[in-house]
Order: sequence, then structure tokens, then C-alpha cells
Amino acid sequence: MEGKRTHSLDEVAALVGGRVIGDGTLRVSGVRSLEEATEEEIAPFTDRRYLGLLETTRACALIVGEEAPSFPRHQIVVERPHLACARAARLFAPQASGFQGVHAQAFIHESSRLGRDVTVHPGAYVGEDSVIGDRVVLYPGAFVGDRVRIGEGTVVHPNVSVLHDCSVGSGVILHAGTVIGADGFGFVRDGDVSVKVPQIGTVRIDDDVEIGANCTVDRGALGTTWIKSGVKMDNLIQIAHNVVVGEGTVIVAQTGVSGSVEIGRGVVVGGQVGIGDHVSVGDRAMIGSQAGVAKPVGSGEVVSGTPAVSHRLWLKTSRLLTRLPVLNERVRRLEKTVDALMRRLDGRD
Amino acid sequence: MEGKRTHSLDEVAALVGGRVIGDGTLRVSGVRSLEEATEEEIAPFTDRRYLGLLETTRACALIVGEEAPSFPRHQIVVERPHLACARAARLFAPQASGFQGVHAQAFIHESSRLGRDVTVHPGAYVGEDSVIGDRVVLYPGAFVGDRVRIGEGTVVHPNVSVLHDCSVGSGVILHAGTVIGADGFGFVRDGDVSVKVPQIGTVRIDDDVEIGANCTVDRGALGTTWIKSGVKMDNLIQIAHNVVVGEGTVIVAQTGVSGSVEIGRGVVVGGQVGIGDHVSVGDRAMIGSQAGVAKPVGSGEVVSGTPAVSHRLWLKTSRLLTRLPVLNERVRRLEKTVDALMRRLDGRD
Amino acid sequence: MEGKRTHSLDEVAALVGGRVIGDGTLRVSGVRSLEEATEEEIAPFTDRRYLGLLETTRACALIVGEEAPSFPRHQIVVERPHLACARAARLFAPQASGFQGVHAQAFIHESSRLGRDVTVHPGAYVGEDSVIGDRVVLYPGAFVGDRVRIGEGTVVHPNVSVLHDCSVGSGVILHAGTVIGADGFGFVRDGDVSVKVPQIGTVRIDDDVEIGANCTVDRGALGTTWIKSGVKMDNLIQIAHNVVVGEGTVIVAQTGVSGSVEIGRGVVVGGQVGIGDHVSVGDRAMIGSQAGVAKPVGSGEVVSGTPAVSHRLWLKTSRLLTRLPVLNERVRRLEKTVDALMRRLDGRD
Repeated sequence: MEGKRTHSLDEVAALVGGRVIGDGTLRVSGVRSLEEATEEEIAPFTDRRYLGLLETTRACALIVGEEAPSFPRHQIVVERPHLACARAARLFAPQASGFQGVHAQAFIHESSRLGRDVTVHPGAYVGEDSVIGDRVVLYPGAFVGDRVRIGEGTVVHPNVSVLHDCSVGSGVILHAGTVIGADGFGFVRDGDVSVKVPQIGTVRIDDDVEIGANCTVDRGALGTTWIKSGVKMDNLIQIAHNVVVGEGTVIVAQTGVSGSVEIGRGVVVGGQVGIGDHVSVGDRAMIGSQAGVAKPVGSGEVVSGTPAVSHRLWLKTSRLLTRLPVLNERVRRLEKTVDALMRRLDGRD
Repeated sequence: MEGKRTHSLDEVAALVGGRVIGDGTLRVSGVRSLEEATEEEIAPFTDRRYLGLLETTRACALIVGEEAPSFPRHQIVVERPHLACARAARLFAPQASGFQGVHAQAFIHESSRLGRDVTVHPGAYVGEDSVIGDRVVLYPGAFVGDRVRIGEGTVVHPNVSVLHDCSVGSGVILHAGTVIGADGFGFVRDGDVSVKVPQIGTVRIDDDVEIGANCTVDRGALGTTWIKSGVKMDNLIQIAHNVVVGEGTVIVAQTGVSGSVEIGRGVVVGGQVGIGDHVSVGDRAMIGSQAGVAKPVGSGEVVSGTPAVSHRLWLKTSRLLTRLPVLNERVRRLEKTVDALMRRLDGRD
Repeated sequence: MEGKRTHSLDEVAALVGGRVIGDGTLRVSGVRSLEEATEEEIAPFTDRRYLGLLETTRACALIVGEEAPSFPRHQIVVERPHLACARAARLFAPQASGFQGVHAQAFIHESSRLGRDVTVHPGAYVGEDSVIGDRVVLYPGAFVGDRVRIGEGTVVHPNVSVLHDCSVGSGVILHAGTVIGADGFGFVRDGDVSVKVPQIGTVRIDDDVEIGANCTVDRGALGTTWIKSGVKMDNLIQIAHNVVVGEGTVIVAQTGVSGSVEIGRGVVVGGQVGIGDHVSVGDRAMIGSQAGVAKPVGSGEVVSGTPAVSHRLWLKTSRLLTRLPVLNERVRRLEKTVDALMRRLDGRD
């Protein structure tokens, strides 16, 4: 195990607020799934459907919600095992590159100010009059434009672009290839020609936001595109100009949010959803995958489908949809029967 | 206001062809929305639904289509206020970085030719035998491959890739992360193996095209993928090999256009649309968001839905779709009634 | 023709296993479509609908499945003309930039090992303890993180990011802007806050895989995201954490594959498809464009639509869908008729 960090089960249990069944002094080197864990690793067991895996796993210990009597080795019992695993995994997460400081092959404009313990890798760029907080990490190919502010501890992954005048909070993670602050899509028709409406607004990203890889968050036309604190976005998501996304909202991959949409707090938006211009989505609403939302969604509503309706109605509808051929046949038979009835009555009149 | 460029209302009015009501010598520092404008800024007022904002806005002046009598300060009246705002906003748009020339941390192959007043930022790359027009700006991470031509005044944003042998016109804007000229998706099955069909065509982008962030425009297989002049594309759009997009066509975010599709001029394609292989779309057609287009669309047609049909029919259809449970219940009731009728008639026979 | 490589028709015929009709010593400089070929080029003729083009093409020779008697010049007849064209085109494909070796403006960490004949362009980056195979090409802006393995002959295009601990096989092509190994989208709710589940797994990409531009392939949460040999992916595709994609499977642009999905071998997935969490897709299945797949798909099944059903049923359903207004009207008419019948019977009782 040389070279790997290890922690005792007692240490892990203390971190996650759990209790050890077995030998608390046992040292483990990581967290991995039941199928993949080695004899030095701990594995989560949170779903009784996988009970069979307890016989075949090589893991030396489990993290469980309640004791698994059939498991012959060690266990940590904890109230919320998923949350405990998340915390435990962080203990063992591979450390970022040993490199520290500002590399000579990076470019930092002399007018910009860097906080303490900032890491700027080769090939990263910081423009004029920007302010980079303490402990920020800029990976290779990270572009930070002019007059950008980046808060403490934020990580800007490779080939991310943060364009001029945008602000990014503290503890934010921007995954590779993401673009913050490209121009919104705004044109005015002048005869056959689309005249560009200069997009002179900005993007504001609050603390503890995480944005996945290859996303695009456009700057406001005249105002601000605003991603509020704790928002989590998956990959390849489009956020158009002047959108507001409320605190703690979660958006799954490949969803597109059109201009000036307002999404409330604690909302869950599925993957490949489209939300039309100027629509509002209330707090804690849920929008199913692939939905097309053209009308406002109220607080706490659960909607699905295109056009989006209540999830319950959509379940019924989509089931009937695949039975349309049957329905069509039933109507044809009714028509025949009714026709026969008519003729029968007519014949007797 | 020191440090900001300001312009008088007279200057703004002259630029947009409007007339000032109030003090034309007043100097303003920018254009912003009614909600966000400061006392030094001018705001558009183009939608009477927001009449109430005229009482609360801090803007010192409005751009309006017709005089707003209730507004106590200055106004510029102009025939097409949206267009006027676009033009006025350009006056105040933040200037690109003060940097000029070719930075030592950029790479330009010695065989390539650069026009006058070209700006090449640190970390930009130009390969062999390429020709870069006057006043072109290449941002950090911009990649320009071998034998590429880029016309005058074109802006290549950070982390854009323009691969070998592609040509880009004048006045083009390529937003961050976009890829021009990756290989088209072409394979021939040989048993269980997909044999790559070398993509030896190119991409041609004409003048005044704007392509959003993180788009992909593939090179032709044997021929050319061609984006004609004045086309405007939003973010995260896929254009496959050998597609032709006609003059002035507008495509909204996350749309995918399959191989060899021909789109006419002045077409509007909504967001998240899919257009199938070899389909043609006529001039000035309109395609609604999330549509799935597998058959040709005629000139001037307006289509929506999957499979795409006339927008009018789609509106009817999608309304009925969510009433399928009701329709199903109506048919069930009819069946019962007809059954009862039958029995009643039979009983009397 | 100076400067261009040329090959005789005999050489081309030998490569593709065909036979020449005409002059085998004729030298050609490339393969292009019938419409675009010059007098020095050879063109495929594989679709009799384009018979008319044989009169107008300038191509000096054809590649055909069977002799085209109306064509007045040379021909190569071969059993599988598409496959032959793919092979012939490779003969003439433009060579990569003349540059070789490791450029001074690249960054390679001293602890990493490079094979023979590796090309590292300016602005490429290789982190700590990575191993780069023989003949690998890293284009500008290519980011290779710590402890990454890249096999022989693999090409990493501009602005691609391969993050720490991922492994990429031999003969792989990663197109521009693609991100391999960003964090999967994993959070545990703790009250109103989403606690990040550290994504400590990796990505494994096997030999001969091709991944299009601006794709995202996330690392496993605790395990491995695995793209098996011969998989071909188009552009802007999302592969979530812990997905497995089987040998030789083909995925078209803008499709999204959710966490822990298992896709078999030889599967064809259309464009803009969404596949839900934990779904399995059997070997040689086919999934139509824009489908929404929430349930398992069996081996060899062909499915389409949202929710996905058998392609045959979906064809029926989608045809009936646009005839819903007609169906609705038929039901309305039945209701009236049945009502009239009832009243008629009641009147007589």
C-alpha cells in the first residue's frame, strides 16, 4: 500500500458519524463499488437487491444503513449511507497535481491581482484588471478574460473560457470546455439581414455552483445571466441570455434554457429538456427528461412531456399513445356496428 | 463617469435616425434594461406591458417607438426601436482587450501570412500556409490549422478550433469552444468493423456569419460543408458533413442537422430540432423547437412536432394528445352504449 | 499536378481489390463526389438515381459496383464500392502538419514517458506520471492530465481534455473540444444542499475508438466508464458516469446516455436519443433518432419514439398521431349518431 494514503475505519466512522462493527483500527485505502473494490477498500451497500454481491465482493469493509449480518468482515453503520460515502470518498480522492504557483508558460496580465496560493498551470490565461481569489486553480487552456472576478477556492478546468466582465463566486467548479459569457443570441431583422444586438450584459455565478463539461452560459443582452448559489449543472447544457437559475437547482445534461427564463430554487430539471423564452418555473418544481416547456410551471409542480403537462397526465397519455392503433381500431369497429344498427332500424321502419 | 465613454443624446439620435424629446446635449454612458439602468444610462421601452416600469426606472432617457407621455425625462423617438437599441448599444460596447499585435507566447508558422492589424493573443496557434486577413483577432487557445483562410475582421474566440483547409469569410464571429472542420461521421461496415471513410472535404463559412459557443461544423466527406453569408447560429449546434445552410438563415441552440441536408435562405430553425439525412428545407421555412424533420419542408412552410407536420396541425394534435385519456373514456362509453342498444334491439326482435 | 501525390488507377484498383476498365496507367490525384471532381480525380458512382450526373461530371474515372456503360472514360469495378472509396480516399488524404517532435512551447512533465515518434504541438500539455505511446499526436490545446495512458498511434485533436487517471487505447481518434474524464454528476441531498459525491473512478477507452467533437465522457463515480474497442461516436454526445458501451457500437450526434447504462456490442443509436439511468441495451439493437429510452431494450430489437416502443408500432402510432384531429371528429360524429339512435328508440318505446 506504499504511496497511497490510508485511513483507519475509526477515522472514517468519525468523519461520517457512524459506528464500526469489527476492527476499527483496520486501515483502508479507498472507496469503490462492491464489484470493483480491492481487499484494501471499503464499499457502500445501500440496495438490498445487490445482496448477492456481498458473497463475491473483495471489499474489506462496508458502509451500510443497517448491519448486514451476512457480511463476514467489517462494517460502518450510519444513518445516511449515501451521504456518508460521499464524505468518505473525499478523504481518498486523488489530489490535484503537485504543481503550485504561477507557471512561466501561463499568461497573467500585469494589471490583474492574484490571491494567495493560486495555481496557474502552463497555458492558462488571465486578461486585464481581473481579480483571482485565494487558492483558485486555473488548469491549462483556462481562459479568464478582462475584468473577471473569481472567488476563493474556485477550480477552472482545462479549456474553460470565462469571458470579460463575468463574475464567478467561491468554491465553484467549472468543468473542462465550458464557456461562460459568450454573446447571447440576439438579432434584429433589418430586411433580409440580421443585425446583431450587442450583448453588453454579463454572467454572475454565485458560490458553490458546479457546472459540467462543455456547457454554455451566455451573457445578458442588457442585464445579467445569473446562476445562484448551490446550483449543480451536468454537461452540454445551454443557458441563454438573461436567464436566472435559483439556489440549489439541479439541471441534468443536454438541457436548453431559452432567453429570460426564470427558474426558482430547489428545482430539478431532467436531461434534454427544452424551456421556451420568458417561461417561469416555480420553486421546487420538477421537469421530466426530454420535456418541452412552453408555459409557466408552478411551485412544486411535476411536469413531463411535450408540450409539458402534469407528470401524472403525461404517464396516462404516453401509455395511451402507444395504444393509438388499438383505439383507432375500436373506433372503426364502433362505426361499423353503429352503421349496422342504423340500417337494421331503417329496415324495420 | 471618468473612464467611461459617453455620448450625447444628439449623437445617439443621429446614429439611429431618431429625434430627441428633451435635452439633446445630455451625455449617457450606456444602454441597459429599464430595471437595471443607472441614472447615466438610456433604456429601451418597446412593450407597453411594462408601462409600470417607467415610474421606477432610474434611466435618464428612453429609446421609444412613440413618445411615452408619462415618462418625466428625455426620450429618443425612432421608427424601429429594437433596431435602434442594437445600434446604440454598439456605441457603448466594451472594447476588446487593449492588447495588439502578435504575442510572443502565440505560435504562428513561418509559412503563414498575416494581414495588417492582426491581434494574436498568447496561446493562439496558426499552422502552415494559412492566410489571416486584416484586423482578425485570435483569442487564447484559438487553433487555426494548416492551409486555412480567414477573412478580414473576423473574430476567433478562446479555445475555438478551425481545422486544416477550411475557409472562413470576413466579419465572421466564432464563439468560444466551437469546432470547425472536424471529420464528418462516415463509416462503411466491413463485417463487424466500421471502416472510417476519410473525410477529405472542407468547410466554407461565408461573410458575416456568427456561430455560437461549443458548436460543431464537420468537414465534407468528399465535398464541402457550406455555411452561407449572414447565417446566425446559437450554441451547441451540430452541422454534419456536406450540409448547406442558405443566406441569412437562423438556427437556435442545440439543433442537429444531419449529413447532406440542404437548408434554404432566410429559414428559421428553432432549438433542439433534429433534421434527418439528405432532407431539404425550402427558403423562408420555419421549423418549431424540438421538431423532428425526416421529410422535405417546402419554401415558406411552417412545421412543428415529431414527425414534423404543419404547425397548425401540430397545434391541434398536441392539444388532443393531452386529452387522449378523455378520448379513450369517450370511446369506452360509446362501446357500452352501443352494446346496450344492441341488446335492447335484440331483446325486442 | 506538381506538389500533389498521384496514384495510377492500377495502384488504386490493387488497393481496393477491383479491376480497371480503361487505362490503368492513368494517374489520379484524389477522390471527390461526381459534382465536385476535377479532371484529375476519381469519383464514386454507387446510386443509380444519379445516373444523369455521369454526363456532366468532369471526373476522369469512376469507382463502381458494376460497369456503367454510359460513362465514356475509365472505371474501377469492385464488389463493395463504398468500402473501396473509403480505402481509396485514404491514399489521397492530406497529411498532418509536417511538424514532428516535441515543441518547445508544449509542456511535458518530466515524470511522464513518451514513446517513439510522438508529436507534441505548441500549447499541448502532459501532466505527471503519464505514458504516451509511439506515434501519438497531441495537437495544440490538447490537455493530458496526471497518470493518463495513451496507446500507440492515437490522435488527440486541438483543445481536447483527457483528465487524470484515464486510459485511452491505440489507434483512437479524439476530435477537437472533447472532454474525457470530467466528474460524473453525483450529489447527495443534505437538506437544501447538494453534497458532491467525489467522482473517484476513471474512464477507459479501448482501441480503435473514434469520438467526435465536443463530446463529454464522464469518469465513473466509484468504478469505470468504459468505451470498448471499435466504438464510433459522433459530435456533442454525453456519456455519463459508469456507462459501458460495447464493441463496435455506433452513436449518432447529440445523444445522451445516463449513468450506469450498459449498451451491448454492434448497437446503433440514432441522433438526439436519450437513454435513462441504469437501462440496458442488448447487442445489435437499433434505437431511432430522438427516441427516449427508459426501459431495457433486448438484443436485436429495433425501437423508436418517446417512450420508446418497437419501431413498427412507433411508425403506426406516429402516423395516427397526426390524424388525431380526424379521430376526434369521428368519435364526435359517433356520439351524435348514437345519441340520435337512442332518442329514436326511446321515442318508439
